[in-house]
Amino acid sequence: MWARGAGFAPFVAKPGLPMGFDMRRAIARKRDGGVLSAGDWHSILQAHQTGEADDAQLAALLMAAFLRGLDTQETAGLTRAMIESGETLEAPAPNCVDKHSSGGVADTASLIVVPIVAACGIPVAKLSGRALGHTGGTLDKLEAIEGVRTDLAPERFAAQVREVGCAIAAQSARLVPADKKMYALRDRTSTVQSLGLVAASIVSKKIAAGAPAIVYDVKVGGGAFFNKLDDARALAQTLVDLSVSFGRRAVAIVTDMNEPLGASIGTGLEALAAREFLDGTRRDARLRALCQKLGIALLAAGGYAGDAGEAFERALAGGAAYERFERMLAAQGMRPGALEKLVPHGSSTQACAERTGFVAAIDASALGLLARDAIEAHGSNAGIVVHKRIGDAVRSGEALATVYGASDAARAAGAFAVGDAPPPERPLVYFETASVRSTLETR
Amino acid sequence: MWARGAGFAPFVAKPGLPMGFDMRRAIARKRDGGVLSAGDWHSILQAHQTGEADDAQLAALLMAAFLRGLDTQETAGLTRAMIESGETLEAPAPNCVDKHSSGGVADTASLIVVPIVAACGIPVAKLSGRALGHTGGTLDKLEAIEGVRTDLAPERFAAQVREVGCAIAAQSARLVPADKKMYALRDRTSTVQSLGLVAASIVSKKIAAGAPAIVYDVKVGGGAFFNKLDDARALAQTLVDLSVSFGRRAVAIVTDMNEPLGASIGTGLEALAAREFLDGTRRDARLRALCQKLGIALLAAGGYAGDAGEAFERALAGGAAYERFERMLAAQGMRPGALEKLVPHGSSTQACAERTGFVAAIDASALGLLARDAIEAHGSNAGIVVHKRIGDAVRSGEALATVYGASDAARAAGAFAVGDAPPPERPLVYFETASVRSTLETR
Repeated sequence: MWARGAGFAPFVAKPGLPMGFDMRRAIARKRDGGVLSAGDWHSILQAHQTGEADDAQLAALLMAAFLRGLDTQETAGLTRAMIESGETLEAPAPNCVDKHSSGGVADTASLIVVPIVAACGIPVAKLSGRALGHTGGTLDKLEAIEGVRTDLAPERFAAQVREVGCAIAAQSARLVPADKKMYALRDRTSTVQSLGLVAASIVSKKIAAGAPAIVYDVKVGGGAFFNKLDDARALAQTLVDLSVSFGRRAVAIVTDMNEPLGASIGTGLEALAAREFLDGTRRDARLRALCQKLGIALLAAGGYAGDAGEAFERALAGGAAYERFERMLAAQGMRPGALEKLVPHGSSTQACAERTGFVAAIDASALGLLARDAIEAHGSNAGIVVHKRIGDAVRSGEALATVYGASDAARAAGAFAVGDAPPPERPLVYFETASVRSTLETR
Repeated sequence: MWARGAGFAPFVAKPGLPMGFDMRRAIARKRDGGVLSAGDWHSILQAHQTGEADDAQLAALLMAAFLRGLDTQETAGLTRAMIESGETLEAPAPNCVDKHSSGGVADTASLIVVPIVAACGIPVAKLSGRALGHTGGTLDKLEAIEGVRTDLAPERFAAQVREVGCAIAAQSARLVPADKKMYALRDRTSTVQSLGLVAASIVSKKIAAGAPAIVYDVKVGGGAFFNKLDDARALAQTLVDLSVSFGRRAVAIVTDMNEPLGASIGTGLEALAAREFLDGTRRDARLRALCQKLGIALLAAGGYAGDAGEAFERALAGGAAYERFERMLAAQGMRPGALEKLVPHGSSTQACAERTGFVAAIDASALGLLARDAIEAHGSNAGIVVHKRIGDAVRSGEALATVYGASDAARAAGAFAVGDAPPPERPLVYFETASVRSTLETR
């Protein structure tokens, strides 16, 4: 697997458009509820790449796909065609793992789990994305640490995974170039929220990047892109089915995003939270529970032989995970003393409760957007630290959150709803696809 | 009505886009089955005109409109917005009429009916289109007559209607400019065949051109754009409802297009057929029946006081219609002797029956495309004259059609199916909306 090196390798030859391909006919087929083959999708994306089909034609087709839906087989065909639009990578190691989150607020799990899993001996080659809307992006959090770079060349990325055991980098623009174009088009034509299109976008990038095993964390709730459990569950299953159809190991969990996952929201604050989690200073219970779940899934996906739960706790308690965190950052260019600079300074205001009671709901989206605005205005040290979580008792006038770098405490307080009684408990994990092991067994 | 003259008049003021208009939200609303208001459609088309919304966004919206459908009220809103995209005309006379055909093969009715109705004293201000696909365009037929121009300025068009009683011209590009852009987009994104979009396209142009009364001829069958009677009937009713909602008188009939309407197919051949019909040389029975139906409807729409059927026959028999035909053409620039030059010369071949029997079916589309190809290669005198119609007895080796200017007689013969027995008779008129008079009464 490793024999051909970590460089870019062509996935398939790209012949010219097959004779008789007709974009209008393809659009009409999807419009009328038909199914387009992998070859059709290949021709469609190729025609778009060469300019033979224009944005308007692709947009009409995507709207038809949105409204008519794509079944699993058609989604796989589209995914393959998207992969074929660019170059592909070999995995840095045959047992390395990758993790994907569908995006949430205060979701610092990647920065925490990646070094833990690496400390247990399973290499992690993680490709991450940028912040989108109200959600944070792992790359932005890493770059809040002075000196840290995420634009690693494929060779350097692979070498770091082998030498340090883990790396978190941006995906090369040479992988799945069709995805970037399609996403921009879907964004402006209101065709983003389609199960098939979302799944093809996510999985094509993971497959092209070479990950042999992938753990998907699909968020559901007010702070996520999916609000309905059924939609999230369908996406989770589709992500796994698609990945397995490309010969990869995969598992997906659907987790709660009805309040910020951790206490800290913001690029620098979340990097700091990861550090404090790993060195034992502060470990938010909900964030810890999710990290444990994801860590064990990643270890299983990487073929960890022993008790993954025990290994996870050992790496965390013994300091091996923290040490791996620092080594990873150092390998990616972190300046000395950069982690200390993450501690927020400058002005801060308290968002306080207007009444006594129990926190009934938190608008994670609103807090995510507030943190984004504060960072845009005041830099990566700005953001929000949440002091009260859903179900917590609160007295009138007590601090619900601290807002760093912005004076808009009222906006932050408005994201909290306080009621008379604590709401019923919500699970952290709603759904989980068949374990990696049984996924492998059924193949 | 005539007071403000025949020049261009602004229809409504065009304010800037309303605050808070969001193209993505508009697309999402239609995508989810919602209804867009006239104001929404106005904003959408304006945003597209100014470049604030791009082709891809409009294409996605049109696909959503195609799949979700537009009810009558929403179609009226879109029609209004399309009219507001350009300038509008006053009618040349308060009682003048216009006619629209949805497009067929060998449909020479406009060239015949317009002078007949004018000869009966009802002015006809007809704006026509070009050939589309396998169907002929009235403008192209007129321009096959040496010297005839169809690009009349609005003032000249109006003056001719008043002086000669009729004119047939191309629609100014300043009327409903949104339609041209939308049609080009729909054509390449497979969103043409939508009831609401088709109706808005047709009616917006008629309303913008100022026609006080309109007769719509909706073709149905293999040689038409609509193949299903239900679709044609729905379009007919929508065209009338829309027109009436804009304060116009209107009637629509659904007529058969399962074989070429007349015997001649081709620009010059159809102009010749119109001449021969009017001067009495040759009158195809099916074409005559439709012209009578349309002529009477136009006379009624124009408020003709007497017996419209009698007036029609009188104008035809007495030569008044033919004289009006020549005056109209002369007013539009016809050179002396131009009508004589329409007689086909040069090579011709016979398409012959391979067996004895009865003509069971004729592929009008195929003949339309063959005539188009012949004209492209050999000029406007080329085309096809059909000798056998559906139901006619034919002997093996007997001529089914003569093809002028092309040697592809086999292709023409292949468009005829010969069976053992004559097929059941088909009506010429399948459906008719409430008469103009009762349409007026219910307003």
